Amino acid sequence: MKLARVAGTVVSTISHPFFDGRRLLVCDLESGSGYLIAVDTVDAGMGERVLVLDEGNGARQIFDIETGPIRSVVVGIVDSVTGVDEG
Amino acid sequence: MKLARVAGTVVSTISHPFFDGRRLLVCDLESGSGYLIAVDTVDAGMGERVLVLDEGNGARQIFDIETGPIRSVVVGIVDSVTGVDEG
Amino acid sequence: MKLARVAGTVVSTISHPFFDGRRLLVCDLESGSGYLIAVDTVDAGMGERVLVLDEGNGARQIFDIETGPIRSVVVGIVDSVTGVDEG
Amino acid sequence: MKLARVAGTVVSTISHPFFDGRRLLVCDLESGSGYLIAVDTVDAGMGERVLVLDEGNGARQIFDIETGPIRSVVVGIVDSVTGVDEG
Amino acid sequence: MKLARVAGTVVSTISHPFFDGRRLLVCDLESGSGYLIAVDTVDAGMGERVLVLDEGNGARQIFDIETGPIRSVVVGIVDSVTGVDEG
Repeated sequence: MKLARVAGTVVSTISHPFFDGRRLLVCDLESGSGYLIAVDTVDAGMGERVLVLDEGNGARQIFDIETGPIRSVVVGIVDSVTGVDEG
Repeated sequence: MKLARVAGTVVSTISHPFFDGRRLLVCDLESGSGYLIAVDTVDAGMGERVLVLDEGNGARQIFDIETGPIRSVVVGIVDSVTGVDEG
Repeated sequence: MKLARVAGTVVSTISHPFFDGRRLLVCDLESGSGYLIAVDTVDAGMGERVLVLDEGNGARQIFDIETGPIRSVVVGIVDSVTGVDEG
Repeated sequence: MKLARVAGTVVSTISHPFFDGRRLLVCDLESGSGYLIAVDTVDAGMGERVLVLDEGNGARQIFDIETGPIRSVVVGIVDSVTGVDEG
Repeated sequence: MKLARVAGTVVSTISHPFFDGRRLLVCDLESGSGYLIAVDTVDAGMGERVLVLDEGNGARQIFDIETGPIRSVVVGIVDSVTGVDEG
């Protein structure tokens, strides 16, 4: 998993029903560079530090589904971290 | 998922029947560098900003197939984004 | 697999029951740069050199589960290494 | 998928029967850097521009097999591309 | 797959029975940078040029197992290569 900070949201018309009512978050990665677009599951707010799971089969387990067009999911809000500088 | 901009198309003879009639798009990635070749599903136009799903098992769900030689799919046209500069 | 050194821990509220009672470790990668957040399975201490498996299906085997929202696992404490500088 | 140019071949003794009679190609990637070693399926010649699928489950579909120790496959010879400079 | 050169070995206590009696090799990647820790299957010697398969499902096929906590495997010793400089 990766640490990230929520930077924004994406609004996009995706026809697959999995995405109906889902929030897509822009997640700035703290390690490495760049950002991912991840599906929210924890009602994360702007600027919050979160954990992102970036693996399709595991991501589908979060939603308890066997199939689904998904790879990246925000799985938790970070309460505290030691060993890395604040992102 | 990743944000990208449609930069072009690829014409290639691929013998596997999955690709019959599919459009292959050159998608310039906004985060990181470089581009991916992704299968179109939303009739994206040149220069449009899109969401790309880059994971094989999830990509196959978009087409509602269990098998298929595919990894990257354009799943949506982006209406608006906050938190990142325009690509 | 990758060599890493345990740099810290992450405390996060994750609703999925898989994570109940699991320790999340900040693992500084020795090859490449950056760090991963991995689930501990060997009771690794701060500063210890470890092996990290970073693949979802294999990671689930470590826990002997077929499903689970997981990708990265600390699978072993390193006793000795030849051929690379000490991380 | 990725655009690449065939730069050479690899001769290696691999005991797994999947590789019996397969050609392994050195494929210089056009986006990013470096090269992959991919299994040929289109009888690609040296210097030809090709499409490489770099995902194991999808790669196995090209050969219509459920299992097989494979990740990267040359799936097509490129006829034309717009939107990127010639590699 | 990737070309690599065997640079060393890793000794680590891993509790999962898959690793009993397996040799773990430090494999310096020729394309890109860094190294992987891969399971040996060809009795590769120090300094030998090898092919590494870096995909979990495919790696498990090499061992003819459906499950196993593994991602990277040394699948062949390289006899000759054209199109790339010697690593």
